[in-house]
Amino acid sequence: MKTAKYALGLDFGTNSVRALIVDVGNGEEVGTAIFPYPGGDAGILLDPKDANLARQNPAGWILGIEKSVTAALAAAKKKVKGFDPAAIVGIGVDTTGSTPLPLDRAGKPLALHKEFRKNLNAQAWLWKDHTAHAEAAEITALAAAEHPEYLAKCGGTYSSEWFWSKILHCLRTDPKVAAAAYSWAECADYIPALLTGSTDPLRMKRSRCAAGHKAMFNDAWGGLPAKAFLARLDPRLGELRDRLYQKTYTSDVPAGGLTKDWARKLGLRPGIAVAVGAFDAHLGGISSGVETGRFVKIIGTSTCDICVWPATKKLPDIPGLCGIVDGSVLPGYLGLEAGQSAVGDIFNWFVNVIEPGGPKKGSHAVLTKGAAALKPGESGLLALDWLNGNRTVLVDQRLTGLLVGLTLHSTPAEIYRALIEATAFGALTIIRRFEEYGVRISDVVNCGGIAEKNPLVMQIYADVTGLEMKIARSSQTCALGAAMAGAVAAGRPGGGHATFAEAQAAMGGIKRTVYKPDPARHRVYLELYALYRQLHDAFGTKDWSGSLFNVMKDLLAIKDRQRR
Amino acid sequence: MKTAKYALGLDFGTNSVRALIVDVGNGEEVGTAIFPYPGGDAGILLDPKDANLARQNPAGWILGIEKSVTAALAAAKKKVKGFDPAAIVGIGVDTTGSTPLPLDRAGKPLALHKEFRKNLNAQAWLWKDHTAHAEAAEITALAAAEHPEYLAKCGGTYSSEWFWSKILHCLRTDPKVAAAAYSWAECADYIPALLTGSTDPLRMKRSRCAAGHKAMFNDAWGGLPAKAFLARLDPRLGELRDRLYQKTYTSDVPAGGLTKDWARKLGLRPGIAVAVGAFDAHLGGISSGVETGRFVKIIGTSTCDICVWPATKKLPDIPGLCGIVDGSVLPGYLGLEAGQSAVGDIFNWFVNVIEPGGPKKGSHAVLTKGAAALKPGESGLLALDWLNGNRTVLVDQRLTGLLVGLTLHSTPAEIYRALIEATAFGALTIIRRFEEYGVRISDVVNCGGIAEKNPLVMQIYADVTGLEMKIARSSQTCALGAAMAGAVAAGRPGGGHATFAEAQAAMGGIKRTVYKPDPARHRVYLELYALYRQLHDAFGTKDWSGSLFNVMKDLLAIKDRQRR
Repeated sequence: MKTAKYALGLDFGTNSVRALIVDVGNGEEVGTAIFPYPGGDAGILLDPKDANLARQNPAGWILGIEKSVTAALAAAKKKVKGFDPAAIVGIGVDTTGSTPLPLDRAGKPLALHKEFRKNLNAQAWLWKDHTAHAEAAEITALAAAEHPEYLAKCGGTYSSEWFWSKILHCLRTDPKVAAAAYSWAECADYIPALLTGSTDPLRMKRSRCAAGHKAMFNDAWGGLPAKAFLARLDPRLGELRDRLYQKTYTSDVPAGGLTKDWARKLGLRPGIAVAVGAFDAHLGGISSGVETGRFVKIIGTSTCDICVWPATKKLPDIPGLCGIVDGSVLPGYLGLEAGQSAVGDIFNWFVNVIEPGGPKKGSHAVLTKGAAALKPGESGLLALDWLNGNRTVLVDQRLTGLLVGLTLHSTPAEIYRALIEATAFGALTIIRRFEEYGVRISDVVNCGGIAEKNPLVMQIYADVTGLEMKIARSSQTCALGAAMAGAVAAGRPGGGHATFAEAQAAMGGIKRTVYKPDPARHRVYLELYALYRQLHDAFGTKDWSGSLFNVMKDLLAIKDRQRR
Repeated sequence: MKTAKYALGLDFGTNSVRALIVDVGNGEEVGTAIFPYPGGDAGILLDPKDANLARQNPAGWILGIEKSVTAALAAAKKKVKGFDPAAIVGIGVDTTGSTPLPLDRAGKPLALHKEFRKNLNAQAWLWKDHTAHAEAAEITALAAAEHPEYLAKCGGTYSSEWFWSKILHCLRTDPKVAAAAYSWAECADYIPALLTGSTDPLRMKRSRCAAGHKAMFNDAWGGLPAKAFLARLDPRLGELRDRLYQKTYTSDVPAGGLTKDWARKLGLRPGIAVAVGAFDAHLGGISSGVETGRFVKIIGTSTCDICVWPATKKLPDIPGLCGIVDGSVLPGYLGLEAGQSAVGDIFNWFVNVIEPGGPKKGSHAVLTKGAAALKPGESGLLALDWLNGNRTVLVDQRLTGLLVGLTLHSTPAEIYRALIEATAFGALTIIRRFEEYGVRISDVVNCGGIAEKNPLVMQIYADVTGLEMKIARSSQTCALGAAMAGAVAAGRPGGGHATFAEAQAAMGGIKRTVYKPDPARHRVYLELYALYRQLHDAFGTKDWSGSLFNVMKDLLAIKDRQRR
């Protein structure tokens, strides 16, 4: 009998880090543990004076590695008789993003220096930090004028959530941190560098996924945006470019070997491969079996949608996508990222904020039961799923939710179903955009709690899109994807896998339950979708007579003014 | 000291009849009583197989007169020392409408004949009966083609709620009742005829208000619609015209004197004047002090809006108004009627059907408190008040409610306020339509429970419209208006008043509290109103590129199909 080998996935989330130990041979998850980041609001550092601010202390990550791995190992020892931590052959890392942090010359986070410990700008700028919205608009405008090719790969708009916006905002608002920051790295760059002792900012193996999706890195124009372009935004940004990176790596590549120090601290073998980092959804896409023609939906409060396309085949720029990056998911494939700004958050809003009928009558379970009893179109209601803006295909945060068809008899269950349907129409709009540009989708794999626990949502998604809805086998798709990266970085000789395809075949998989579209319901939904598109285009697109594009914008402008 | 004189108002509502005894000299309400109609669902006869059907048994009216008057007299005797029923000098009658019922040759309701007692078609067809929707469409189409002038006085669409639609439907679906019905009368025609012993259908003094608003009666074209027109719809309808009426009367005119029988039954003086009947809102308009430039809003589950315009001054047809009828409110004035299909019903829907936070947190009181703490536009929400269609100015039942501006933070109180504001925008749309056609509005008098009890609603109405909101003194405006009609029908020599103006001065009045518009809030509301109008026109009007007119219609069509 062959001794089992394992890979460790480290999944750095918004509020916690998870460690997951997975059998490299069959994908069995033998031990897992979560460590919630200490401090802040559920680990997020906030500023009572600025609702846009969201930071993370890197000290929490470092502590979290030790705590979560130790606990996961203990769990594995309990579960598997004779489990030996030395059987762990590789480590993979997935993180949120863009979550950049300033580093000193040695690659040590400024936040770990005493004088910056309490400075919010010296911490990691969490993905959901929107303090840099003005800088994002400035970058978008300059790129549109001088380098439209930069924008074509990231949906036409550079976001306030991304790398350059955040750094530019920091340069302009905190000269001390700006001056002390020799370089910046994404969380996905920093953690593997830390574990492998290769934190020198100039030599750190940077994540292709993070660089391509958030820093406009593309070999087509020689890597990072041109120095002159960055200097136009701020001379210091131009100078910083020389202290960042020219090369990036996919997650099949080892960032290095685990240091002796970390090996001792964690109880693992020193020298085992630590893969280059990537974002959570992208590694989640891998563990969900992403391949050409398969659409992976990671459904949570919002969704991230992941697709791949062979890098050797031609693909036009697809307007409205969050990103198109060679190797951001699988090496040798373009990684295509899309997403919906709110899905679970919409259902949670209706249950937790509107709370129809009170906490009991207005629970997800009761509303789902009522909604399940309805036929498509029976309520006469139709909604736009823009309660948190629209990420794909409109790339517009200043859009809002809409509900039409209300009568004096409209019930909470009807509204709940209309909200679910709206998110399905939003998903269909993304799928259609892919297909309009030649990326055929033949099935959809869903991950996340809603996909696993709410058959009604999955059936509606099948009926609306006309596509089969499958569910990823693991409920820890991101951490599992990270573990796969660890296995691939270890390589076959190291006890892992030669390729991601091999890792997917051995460690991945989908559940048996498949939600098949019902043709009759699909026909009704196509009628409703035509109306959804009419509202989508009326409120979401401009420059045509009859456009209502101004309505949501004007309401938000009046709202902002009245709240001041 | 002069002995006080009184007038009696009889107010025939949807579920009950109210008797109100009022001091002719000062408007003091000395006795009142309500009698709920027996049987049916709160007095309404329904058909479990047809949700459109709503009928009333005239026997309930007759019983109700005796019961309510007797009780009101008893109350007056308790309240006023030495009260003498003989001091009642006149009776006025207001009713719902169009509420027609079939009569035999002597003017006795068919429903009172043994063989028709249980026939729903022999009962009074209550205003909210919509069984005749197909006939209404047919009448509208024929009038549009052959007599557009008929439609110009009633908003461009003949309603399924109205006189000819209902009779035509009866002719086509119940030949027995159709054959037995010598004539038809409105409840407003029948009650005064009954009390004065003048029920002969050919001599009954018919209500101008009912005839003008519901039966397309207008002296401009010789009274009722042309015989040929009616005969084109159905030959029997053409023949019926000869058994209806050529002349109609305003409510300052006595229908006759109270019969000895009724005087004995009620304990009143025989021979006292009984005024010609009119609709509730129209007499309510009078008691609220309607005059040129004053807009009376009777706010309940829906609203009825009443205005007058001197009959001697030119007035163009105003598109979208429910009716323009000479003398339907005040003699010598055009009565202008408009309305909103749902107002209180919308707030009640949110509280009773959506019930946000449960019954306690979602009460009107709690939501009003939360809504009152918000500034205009602060929520970013905007709604269309069409949850029960749109009566004025679009005259379209196939419209639905809309809510836009939703975010993940939108609260129940914000939605509640948006719903209130939507009804205010609907009111402003009506006022603007009046003004566009030359009817200047300088103030608004509101009646009904919401007007009396919800200062937030009144303040929002003032702030949205930029007009002062006043409140009618009486909370029984319709019954008080009926009592005024009784006083005027009695005349000054009979112990009453010479004119309605005199009665209004003596018996009417408004409360001291006046809601004044706040200029700053009004400015914000004008911005929001521009957006409301944009949605109003996008979803409510057609035949222009970019119109979303189809959206609500298509949703309703799919809904109808899916519910079948």
